[in-house]
Amino acid sequence: MRLSYGLAALSQGDRLVAWAFERRELRPTDIAVKIQFCGVCHSDLHAIRGNSRFPLVPGHEMVGEVTAIGAEVTKFHIGDVVVVGTIVDSCGHCSSCKRQLEQYCLEGVTTTYDGIDKHDGSITRGGYSNEYVVDTHFAYHIPSGLDPASVAPLLCAGVTTWSPLRHWDVKPGKTVGVVGLGGLGHMAVKFAHALGAHVVLFSTSPDKLVDAKALGADEAIVSTDEAQMAAQASRFDFILDTVSSRHPLDPYLRSLKLDGTLCCLGIPKALDFSPFLLTIGRRRLASSGVGGTLETQEMLDFCSQHKISADVEVIAAADVNDGFDRLERGEVRYRLVIDMATLKVPAGATA
Amino acid sequence: MRLSYGLAALSQGDRLVAWAFERRELRPTDIAVKIQFCGVCHSDLHAIRGNSRFPLVPGHEMVGEVTAIGAEVTKFHIGDVVVVGTIVDSCGHCSSCKRQLEQYCLEGVTTTYDGIDKHDGSITRGGYSNEYVVDTHFAYHIPSGLDPASVAPLLCAGVTTWSPLRHWDVKPGKTVGVVGLGGLGHMAVKFAHALGAHVVLFSTSPDKLVDAKALGADEAIVSTDEAQMAAQASRFDFILDTVSSRHPLDPYLRSLKLDGTLCCLGIPKALDFSPFLLTIGRRRLASSGVGGTLETQEMLDFCSQHKISADVEVIAAADVNDGFDRLERGEVRYRLVIDMATLKVPAGATA
Repeated sequence: MRLSYGLAALSQGDRLVAWAFERRELRPTDIAVKIQFCGVCHSDLHAIRGNSRFPLVPGHEMVGEVTAIGAEVTKFHIGDVVVVGTIVDSCGHCSSCKRQLEQYCLEGVTTTYDGIDKHDGSITRGGYSNEYVVDTHFAYHIPSGLDPASVAPLLCAGVTTWSPLRHWDVKPGKTVGVVGLGGLGHMAVKFAHALGAHVVLFSTSPDKLVDAKALGADEAIVSTDEAQMAAQASRFDFILDTVSSRHPLDPYLRSLKLDGTLCCLGIPKALDFSPFLLTIGRRRLASSGVGGTLETQEMLDFCSQHKISADVEVIAAADVNDGFDRLERGEVRYRLVIDMATLKVPAGATA
Repeated sequence: MRLSYGLAALSQGDRLVAWAFERRELRPTDIAVKIQFCGVCHSDLHAIRGNSRFPLVPGHEMVGEVTAIGAEVTKFHIGDVVVVGTIVDSCGHCSSCKRQLEQYCLEGVTTTYDGIDKHDGSITRGGYSNEYVVDTHFAYHIPSGLDPASVAPLLCAGVTTWSPLRHWDVKPGKTVGVVGLGGLGHMAVKFAHALGAHVVLFSTSPDKLVDAKALGADEAIVSTDEAQMAAQASRFDFILDTVSSRHPLDPYLRSLKLDGTLCCLGIPKALDFSPFLLTIGRRRLASSGVGGTLETQEMLDFCSQHKISADVEVIAAADVNDGFDRLERGEVRYRLVIDMATLKVPAGATA
């Protein structure tokens, strides 16, 4: 086993502390990645507070350098800089996996952390760590020409918004709404703009409207302004709602054109809407989960070509708990990324 | 004005009684239709109990004979047998109307009863009546080769299921679920079968399973059987839910394949489902409202070609209140149709 260390919540709801643990030795198609940067995702916070397997090492937006390769690896070489996201294994043979839509694997994916390895039954530990061991199918070359820290969030916030924008065919001529300007929302605005759509950002925060336009929104609307919301009726082909908490969906459903789709990426306990708004205008309510390997590669290529990455603030490992607090208060613009060079080696890790 | 008479609820929740009233004289593009049969729809009952404009004359599944034509009418001749459905006017110029999807008119349709006429502001009175006056755009020639009484329900129960089945591309190779075997459900089974899909009927009533297969279902499943429902996971391309009351949707969402759609035709106050089931499998929740003139004509042609009409029980006008009671108890198989020849002329109508 490979001695590893990182930041862990030792039990539910705990603050993160330095923790030493073991990772598997490389299998023939594995690589070992020395993690340079790891994004701080809202779902990390959910996992810490939820019914996860503890100790929990979060983190699924990684950038790092290949330090070892398995016997059969040809896709990467030692020294390559790679990125790893939210999924590290799937069945590989179901109808979804065959289309490289592994996130919809009918047998269930192995998540990057708090997952169960399909081969040895071990619990996966995430990227708030010095090293990650991953099958090359779920690792990608870093897109060229972009700051590595700003690339990390593409692996979750990026592909989670890219996948539905592409699936629902966002392109020139389409009017697209983005609800919420956080880690996901700011990527959605950048992507939808770069894909050529007319982009309208909805936010409860008036102070984010200027940012939204700088990020690429053609219009930005305070969603609590009833008059402005009423004026959006039947305007949108597609609305991507990136808000994770419960909130009223009727204003967005009303804003959809005939056959329009409201895709909600947040998964609260219930979605609050009036069913008749689906009937009037044959509207659809949908959701979408991260992205598969095909669309992740497509997104990375698009980002390299269009010079798109996340707006990030790089923090030291010691500041991650404060970072969570700021994330909760909505003070992050727009993604925190941990500089893993600042990670302290815990006593137990000095084998 | 034309003196007319029919069956009306004089105030909210009332039993229907004979009632005399006036209809407009024919406009240049109108026809007068002597009503022969009118279907009894669940929404008639909702309207009687709801916040409608009273007195209320229900009925929007009509078959009748043309007795008079307006000056500009060329589509019909006196003596033609025609059918009229749930919509009698729309703006005619919005993006939906231009596609003959009048049910999604952005300015709102005029419903066949309890609607407000766009020209004179009068309240529309439905087909539980001796005569209807309608613009020819919203009347159709009766499909040939079918029993007229059994054709009446095609105008609501028929097109309301036909429209979503066609829109979501039900055809050979598709696995399609139909939830509920009532007026709408029995038409959905017939249509989906005739369109070539593999059809599975879900019902809470074990005694309807035999009927379902006779109507064209390949399989019929008791939806309260948890083991059988669990076995449906990720099987369906499309599920049409025809149940009007609140019920758990999770078993149906779980049954959808990747990118599958659950289309709910009933409009309860809320739809009960777990949002994460939309995320897993990128499933969609949708709804659909009746049908426009293009798809109504398409459906009537299909019915004539495939010899499809509703399974009806013809009742006398005097029995309509009893009919509503039976409808509520789920005892109707599968649509009541009033024989308008049995309608009594109220005293006030003998001008």
